[in-house]
Amino acid sequence: MQVNGQPQRTIWFDEAQHCVRIIDQTLLPHHFNILSLHTLDSACHAIISMQVRGAPLIGVTAAFGVYLALREGNTDLAGVCERLLKTRPTAVNLRWALDRVQAELLSLEAERRPTAALGLARLMADEDAAACSAIGDHGLPLLELAWVEKRRRNPAAECLNVLTHCNAGWLATVDWGTALAPIYKAHFKGIPVHVWVDETRPRNQGAFLTAWELQQQGIPHTVIVDNAGGHLMQHGEVDLCLVGSDRTTATGDVCNKIGTYLKALAAFDNGVPFYVALPVSTIDFGLSDGVREIPIEQRHASEVSHMQGLDETGQLSRVQVMTSHSAINNFGFDVTPARLVTALITEKGVFAPTRESLKSLL
Amino acid sequence: MQVNGQPQRTIWFDEAQHCVRIIDQTLLPHHFNILSLHTLDSACHAIISMQVRGAPLIGVTAAFGVYLALREGNTDLAGVCERLLKTRPTAVNLRWALDRVQAELLSLEAERRPTAALGLARLMADEDAAACSAIGDHGLPLLELAWVEKRRRNPAAECLNVLTHCNAGWLATVDWGTALAPIYKAHFKGIPVHVWVDETRPRNQGAFLTAWELQQQGIPHTVIVDNAGGHLMQHGEVDLCLVGSDRTTATGDVCNKIGTYLKALAAFDNGVPFYVALPVSTIDFGLSDGVREIPIEQRHASEVSHMQGLDETGQLSRVQVMTSHSAINNFGFDVTPARLVTALITEKGVFAPTRESLKSLL
Repeated sequence: MQVNGQPQRTIWFDEAQHCVRIIDQTLLPHHFNILSLHTLDSACHAIISMQVRGAPLIGVTAAFGVYLALREGNTDLAGVCERLLKTRPTAVNLRWALDRVQAELLSLEAERRPTAALGLARLMADEDAAACSAIGDHGLPLLELAWVEKRRRNPAAECLNVLTHCNAGWLATVDWGTALAPIYKAHFKGIPVHVWVDETRPRNQGAFLTAWELQQQGIPHTVIVDNAGGHLMQHGEVDLCLVGSDRTTATGDVCNKIGTYLKALAAFDNGVPFYVALPVSTIDFGLSDGVREIPIEQRHASEVSHMQGLDETGQLSRVQVMTSHSAINNFGFDVTPARLVTALITEKGVFAPTRESLKSLL
Repeated sequence: MQVNGQPQRTIWFDEAQHCVRIIDQTLLPHHFNILSLHTLDSACHAIISMQVRGAPLIGVTAAFGVYLALREGNTDLAGVCERLLKTRPTAVNLRWALDRVQAELLSLEAERRPTAALGLARLMADEDAAACSAIGDHGLPLLELAWVEKRRRNPAAECLNVLTHCNAGWLATVDWGTALAPIYKAHFKGIPVHVWVDETRPRNQGAFLTAWELQQQGIPHTVIVDNAGGHLMQHGEVDLCLVGSDRTTATGDVCNKIGTYLKALAAFDNGVPFYVALPVSTIDFGLSDGVREIPIEQRHASEVSHMQGLDETGQLSRVQVMTSHSAINNFGFDVTPARLVTALITEKGVFAPTRESLKSLL
């Protein structure tokens, strides 16, 4: 997608500098800064510190991380993968990507592995971009139909209102995004989409990243606090919800950013379709009960107690927004039971959130 | 309740200074600062700028505002009340308080009105404190029963977990609070209550005010982002929800801080009791459909785009947490349909959220 009118990906191999390059997402939307990764350490740090985030992008970054480790002369492939796997516990793409890298490299002689690892990481980046584009193509008809239906009921309707939570845009992937891909495709096709952007506390990926992405692409959007979506749905201001997923069970339970479950409840209560867009690599076919089985990452309390923004002089600054006398709890994700999900949009088509429907993907 | 170990109310008449005194709630929890109100202008400003907030406290502040106006020589009682009524559109206590003041003063000669207005405002403050204490007494058995039942099921249970949204503590009233009153009474009775405090974006009244109140009173609590409550309920970490209300219909629909509806949905979905504590003055017997009929205040976008906190030097500072390129929408309240409410706790007892049950209060 575009930044300042120029095509941009979130991660790529820089031939000239011989390193992996990423956008530092911790500084967006205030600063657009490109970082260089030269080592396994820097790749792990990029994932842990959320310079890169989003399940698909984490997977690809890990693949590049394996390459950087091998290039440094680290020959313990299993140890490298284990270290990368531990950077984030919830997203399943990380394991999927590392399993794939390991399987492909193990069959090669040691000296051929670094070059093969780079090729594979670049291939996986391209495949992710292609998968996300396909997710957009498969989701597009759902938005088109919703718009046609809305105009049929109300010829004066001005736009199709889509609510999204967190950031499942191109910044969460290599390109296109998952939940935002159908929105981009709809926008390019002339459907007047307007996006309600959940702020998404505590890290504000909605207000910081999704709003920035949409603004760069010229798509009308409005930022709301996470508390507001239910009220909007009660008043007919949301035509459909569209979110991403960090891990989805074989039965269609969806693990995504904390608060997704609350929006799914409100959508269900108000008859608003609730779609989840995800690459097939996000489905964990070994799990059948998302609420019981998916490990939920607890993150640092400072994400809740402190906020980053521009001070009066325009400098990036951190303020403490609570007293330090209170305990803080900071779960990163929640699980939306399949019964609240209308459909799963993948690069291989649209599926009902049921074991029956999903098993064809195995 | 207590601040630094000393008894404190949110509003009172200072005999020595001959003025109305309030806590400036916009500076909490960082600074505990007392303001003096000498004029109608300052009373209106205190309500509009949310130096005082919370439906019951707004009503009492308006009563003091009428006194200040009359003392300034303003004889247009209806005009004064109209001006105060316009300061906040959602809370019904404001209208209730002003109707009462107007009715009582109109029967008096003009020169007797200022003294009578002061007496009435002080009486209303005392009545509010007494009503809130009674709400605590009526709510206490519900918490006691929940604790006994929890211990019966699990003798190793360590505490009763109550989730609350926004601030419906003593800072929202004159003393005791509404939703927090039963919690304070339970704590004083030795029930080990632990409170999950919703941060409550955009103004963070949970993280700023509720957490501060509970800390001053020595009650264990944990601040969470508004997105987290559903996850906690799915995992059995919430025994009951207890919130306040800015306006409740004759049919039991509850208007409260934006996001309350989402927590009520999650409570219903997980079989967690959802209680609303409110003085009877909060019930608007003229309304029967809360979602359709209650006007929802839209507040300034800067509440979402900017955050106040302590910078690295300990100074209170404001940072802009979004780019200025995105639109913002900021509804202040939402409506929880009666079907999601377990019971209403008032100073006159506990009521089912039905027209049948509430009509005995008329």
